[in-house]
Amino acid sequence: MAAPGSIIGFVGTGVMGRSMAGHLLDAGYRLRVHNRTREKAAPLVDRGAVWCETPGQAAEGAAAVITIVGYPADVEQVYLGSDGLVAASAPGTVLIDMTTSSPVLAQRVHAAGAAVGVPVLDAPVSGGDVGAREARLTIMVGGDPAAFASVEPLLRVMGPNVVLQGGPGAGQHTKMSNQISIAGAMIGACEALAYAEAAGLDPEKVLTSITAGSANSWSLANYAPRMLAGDFAPGFYVKHFIKDMRIALECSREMAIDLPGLELALRLYERLAERGGADSGTQALYLLYKEHAARL
Amino acid sequence: MAAPGSIIGFVGTGVMGRSMAGHLLDAGYRLRVHNRTREKAAPLVDRGAVWCETPGQAAEGAAAVITIVGYPADVEQVYLGSDGLVAASAPGTVLIDMTTSSPVLAQRVHAAGAAVGVPVLDAPVSGGDVGAREARLTIMVGGDPAAFASVEPLLRVMGPNVVLQGGPGAGQHTKMSNQISIAGAMIGACEALAYAEAAGLDPEKVLTSITAGSANSWSLANYAPRMLAGDFAPGFYVKHFIKDMRIALECSREMAIDLPGLELALRLYERLAERGGADSGTQALYLLYKEHAARL
Repeated sequence: MAAPGSIIGFVGTGVMGRSMAGHLLDAGYRLRVHNRTREKAAPLVDRGAVWCETPGQAAEGAAAVITIVGYPADVEQVYLGSDGLVAASAPGTVLIDMTTSSPVLAQRVHAAGAAVGVPVLDAPVSGGDVGAREARLTIMVGGDPAAFASVEPLLRVMGPNVVLQGGPGAGQHTKMSNQISIAGAMIGACEALAYAEAAGLDPEKVLTSITAGSANSWSLANYAPRMLAGDFAPGFYVKHFIKDMRIALECSREMAIDLPGLELALRLYERLAERGGADSGTQALYLLYKEHAARL
Repeated sequence: MAAPGSIIGFVGTGVMGRSMAGHLLDAGYRLRVHNRTREKAAPLVDRGAVWCETPGQAAEGAAAVITIVGYPADVEQVYLGSDGLVAASAPGTVLIDMTTSSPVLAQRVHAAGAAVGVPVLDAPVSGGDVGAREARLTIMVGGDPAAFASVEPLLRVMGPNVVLQGGPGAGQHTKMSNQISIAGAMIGACEALAYAEAAGLDPEKVLTSITAGSANSWSLANYAPRMLAGDFAPGFYVKHFIKDMRIALECSREMAIDLPGLELALRLYERLAERGGADSGTQALYLLYKEHAARL
């Protein structure tokens, strides 16, 4: 059981990870941290976290190791690479990947861990930088129930909504479902605003009407005001959303289902990235509509 | 000023209109009602409303006349046809069309009214049958401020969120913006669920995770449980949503903007209607995904 006072490894101290690790320090856990760019871990080291040169070192003596890195290739290296977590962890150490990544890779890493007595959970999050900062993340978990039970209190330090969705990969699949819903709602929000502006309406006033009822979505309520203000800062990066949608679309093809809305969203976001928007926030999709570049 | 005690004409006593007219009776207005199918007005007549054989008769002595009918062609006939409202109304009578209809037609009817001293407002609603029943409609109004001010208290009897969005047609344009946002969110909700089911997840459990954060929408929270329960009853008819989306798309083309998400939604809903779903509720879009008929 990973209780306060125990040692937790933490790999990936970017925007999300830094906030999440900070909450673990606040709750009394002892951290061993690693990050590709060392400086980003400095604020945590200043607060007492132990710096580690490799992911494997972060697992030394740890009851659990949390990872939240960028892309599936990073997950693969951190878990299965030389001095990776699976090889370096003592049997019984629970490894928790909170990166949004491939369900198939999550199953592969889980199997590699199982072969050496190291349980691996996939536990991606939603809620973004704000949710991480305010410890209000939604955490979607896949893996073995016993391993989940042993780290559930640890996960709850980072967010109140922690659900074991099923076996290995189920957390990632749930996160894909989450991103698919966002893709549709974001298109709806952009198009509702683009229409309102083209029709000569006052879009702020339109929002007071349309967010009040059945047209509302988190995207409309939270991103539309930023779109109107010309605020396209991330938040949630376009390049990361593209990564997520590509994974989801690849999975959907393997499962032989058609998701034309997701296909459309991916196509539009790829176009946005080609036009220089990869490092903008996802609400920058609105620019594609403003620039008349949002054709089917 | 249309205050309680004054006579109000009410044309269109279908599912929506019947509830809305009932609230006006409750609030002390005296109603003159007309409907194409007389029986549907009977419950209101039983409560003291006066039956009228034509729309024009419903305007006799009225401070205002409310209409909520089916399609733009019905609006045209009720307002501009023989014994229609514009010809039959005394100068100063405020005519309020609450049908979701064409912005261009709203401007045409407004102009016809203005020519004979009869102000016309377009005031479509969102909130559906439940919102109508519970007097919680959102009402989006276009027209002249003085006419709006004179009937605002009347409108507030049917819902708390009443906003003058602009000149003639602005109410309809706002409603189009509303429907466009719903179209995107509904695709997102269907695809998120279709993915979750195909991945072998427990979709009810997935909803507890994904409705908690940034993936949430009114459609996801309210329609996804009905989709899972196999409840495709209207609610809001597929055939009416198709009508709305066709109007919005026609307007968007006139305004030279591209709304690929709306185009996709219309195409999918038209396919659903061709397959026998026209009289289902809009959440029946999910069936298209279940039946592998939701290709781009």
